[in-house]
Parts: sequence; structure tokens; C-alpha cells
Amino acid sequence: MTDAPGPIIVIGGHEDKDGDRLILKEVAARIGKGKLVIATVASHEPEGYFDAYQKAFGALGVTNLVELYVNERDETRSTATREILADAAGVFFTGGDQLRISSQIGDTPVEEMVREIHRRGGLVAGTSAGASVMSETMLVRGSSGESHRIGDLNMAPGLGLIPAVIIDQHFAERGRIGRLLGAIAQNPRVLGIGIDEDTAIIVHKESFKVVGAGAVYVVDGADVTHSNVAEARRAESLSIFGVRLHVIANDDCFDLTTRRPHVAG
Amino acid sequence: MTDAPGPIIVIGGHEDKDGDRLILKEVAARIGKGKLVIATVASHEPEGYFDAYQKAFGALGVTNLVELYVNERDETRSTATREILADAAGVFFTGGDQLRISSQIGDTPVEEMVREIHRRGGLVAGTSAGASVMSETMLVRGSSGESHRIGDLNMAPGLGLIPAVIIDQHFAERGRIGRLLGAIAQNPRVLGIGIDEDTAIIVHKESFKVVGAGAVYVVDGADVTHSNVAEARRAESLSIFGVRLHVIANDDCFDLTTRRPHVAG
Repeated sequence: MTDAPGPIIVIGGHEDKDGDRLILKEVAARIGKGKLVIATVASHEPEGYFDAYQKAFGALGVTNLVELYVNERDETRSTATREILADAAGVFFTGGDQLRISSQIGDTPVEEMVREIHRRGGLVAGTSAGASVMSETMLVRGSSGESHRIGDLNMAPGLGLIPAVIIDQHFAERGRIGRLLGAIAQNPRVLGIGIDEDTAIIVHKESFKVVGAGAVYVVDGADVTHSNVAEARRAESLSIFGVRLHVIANDDCFDLTTRRPHVAG
Repeated sequence: MTDAPGPIIVIGGHEDKDGDRLILKEVAARIGKGKLVIATVASHEPEGYFDAYQKAFGALGVTNLVELYVNERDETRSTATREILADAAGVFFTGGDQLRISSQIGDTPVEEMVREIHRRGGLVAGTSAGASVMSETMLVRGSSGESHRIGDLNMAPGLGLIPAVIIDQHFAERGRIGRLLGAIAQNPRVLGIGIDEDTAIIVHKESFKVVGAGAVYVVDGADVTHSNVAEARRAESLSIFGVRLHVIANDDCFDLTTRRPHVAG
């Protein structure tokens, strides 16, 4: 642990748990013999999640795992909850519903302790819903597998651990480029990051590296010359001109400050 | 009929046949009382296609419809086939397999007569497979709903009625941005055009207009700074940096010469 903020590993869902486990290995390498908190709070029915990760991480030598589940916001103030997060080397948010994470732990001591773990150099990771919630403003709902209609997007305040980005997951698998374009059309200040299944970005300081079997799509609206997002009726298709798109595969990197990708090495 | 080349209407599949019929109306407006040839050659089992279009176009006042089907290339040289295309105001290619169109009519008198109809100002239209075949080099196969893997793309010579483009259809619905990016990575000289279902581009001279319920994605690789398409192994994910992407909705236009979109009016 150092005084510099730690890495954030953001996974597009369905990371491999019994094969090469490329992504979980990246988590394991940063946890070692430390304590990893598996936060299953995104799920309404968390049974089974913890067991699956205990098995997958156990085989990678990470054996000090503790589950964090929050039924009601009140529980975030209990001593038991504090003890779960105390001295954790990292926190891993599993999948489910991103609104459950933000509504149950937002503005509570749990959120503050997660930030503290990150600040003092620990790892924060999340998959699927646990990935979306890393955004400042997060995608909650929006159509998949069709072009984006203006009124068809729900957003909510996320945990904001990575500023000025919107993250979407299960990206190519669920055909979500339309809704991510809809999100960045609303304000090109934010950078859209779409992460495929079994694929992750490892964010450290102002850049990230891609790890995994799929690709990461970066959608940059800085040079957009036109969009109809504020004018068109809700049922109309989005129109947006001049988006810059990068498709970034395993080992490639991206600089979040300059908004430029570069190849490994 | 004039001496200037006619319009080409390229449809992303599943165009509305019994509601507003926005796209078929555009076809009807250009055919009127003329003869429209419904070319069902893309299908291995063409039964039913012609009847469906006869019904849909009949309600729009286009009543002079004739079916063109080609079982074997030999038939393209028959007098009966010539008579079907003679004096046609337009030809409409229905869906199926784009390789059936190119392999059955490529380099035959049928292809030449279709070009002649276009040259003398007639309409050429195509939906789904009939859309893909308008490209110079056409997409034949490639994964949908996942990111593009280098080796996972089959292309073939199309009819080339629209030069220097690659057209894909059922675009957002089948999550095909990955394979279109893979195609333009191979040679950014060609412009990628992905057309949603119930959506069309009306190409005239050097520009097109979008009509329909969905969107059209234009993928321009002119400024690409890096791709791994020639280096990576076949199972690896495509990596491509610096693509320009335009999402173009109903009424918006695109200039194929300058590669720039513009809004209606």
C-alpha cells in the first residue's frame, strides 16, 4: 500500500472463471495474500456469487475472501460491515443491478471506505453492473440490439471513481453501441467506454490497459458537429455526426487525458 | 427515363410492408405505372417473396410487377429472361444469400441489363442480401453480436453498383459494427455503411439520403492511425484506432465524395 491511488479494474461481465482466467489473474496479482472483499450488493439474490469467486480466486492463491452484502442502507453503518472492509487490499463488485449498488451504498460509510481503499493504493474492481457503477453518470437502462431512440435511455449518478467517463458492459454481445452513442451525445464532455464480455480495462492514474478476449470501444464526442439529441422527439432515432471511435484489444492502452490510444510497448 | 444514371435504394432488411411503408413508397414514387422487376434470385426458396411484394406494392399503386428468378446461370441467356427485364422501370432485389445473386447473375446478360436500367435512369433497389450485393466488395459472412476477430470475415466481389463502399444490413439489430470495422480495416479506401432494418439509403449521383425508422452508420477509416488486421493471429480481436463514425437518421444526407453528413434542408 502506498499513498498513491490504486488501480481500478473494470470488467465487461462474464469474465472467465475456470480457464485461463486472464482477468482474475490481474486481480489476484494485485491482492496476493491480502484481503479481497467480494461485494455482491448489486444482486437481489446474491446466493452463489461469493462461492463462485471463492473457487475461482482460490485456485489463483487468493484465499482471504470476505463477502459484503447490504440488505438495507442501515447495515452500512454497522460495526460488522466496517470490519469487513477494514484493511482490505481490494473490493470486487459483482454483477446484478447497478442501481442497487448506488442506492444501497451511495453516500454511506461503505462508499467512503471503498474510496479510502482506492486512495491508499488498494484495488477496486467491478464486473457488469459493478463496472457501470464506476462511472460518474452511469447507464441504467437503454435498448440493446437496435439503434438508439432519443427517449430510450436512463442514467443515474454512479460512484464516480473514474471521472468523466460513461462505462457500458456486455458491449458487442448485446449490441450496445447505439445507447453509448446516445449517452455521449447528451454531453461529449464524458468519454464513452464500452467493454466486451471477458474483457477488462485496468485503469491506473490517467490511462488504462485492455486485458481479455474481446475488445473495448472508446467513443469520443469531442469533434461532434451535429446531434439531434435535444431537438428530436423521443421515439426518433439518434443522429450524431463526427464521432471518433477506437477499438482497443488486449494489451493496447488508452490515455484518458489526451484521449488517444496506443499499442503495447 | 433520362440519360443520367438512376437512383439506387439500399434497404437494411425487414422494410415495413403493411404500415406506413415509408421505404416502399420511395420505390413506388420512382416506378409509378412502370414495370418493376422483383428479383428473388437471392433466395433458395423464393416462394412467397413475390406475393408479399405484389400485395405491398399493389396498395401503393405499383401494379406492373414481374418476378425474375434464376435457377441456373444458363437461364440468364434465355429470351424469356430478357423479356422480363426489357423496358423495366426498376429492379428490386429481395433478401436471401448475397452469394446467390453474385454467383447466378454476375457477368451474365442479367447483370448487364440491370446496369443498363440503372444507366438509363431506372431504379435499382435491394433489401438485406439485395443490399449487400450493391457493394464493390461485399460482406458475405462474419460474426454478429461480438467483437470482430481478425480471421472471421468472408468477403466476395459484389455487383459494384455503388463504388468504394461496403454495405452491411440488419445492422444494429444484429450487432454488426464489429464486422464492418473489420471490413474497412482491410482497406480504408472503402467506406463502411451499416443500415438498420426498416431503414434505407437513397443513393443519387454522389450522395445519399436516409429514409426509415432506424439509423445508418457510416464508418470512415480515412484517418485510422493503427490497426492490427494484417499482423494479428486470426483468433485475435480487431484493434483499430481513429475511426470516424456518423450515425445518420431519417432525412439526413451524406456526401460520398467529401465523406461528410449533413442534416436535411
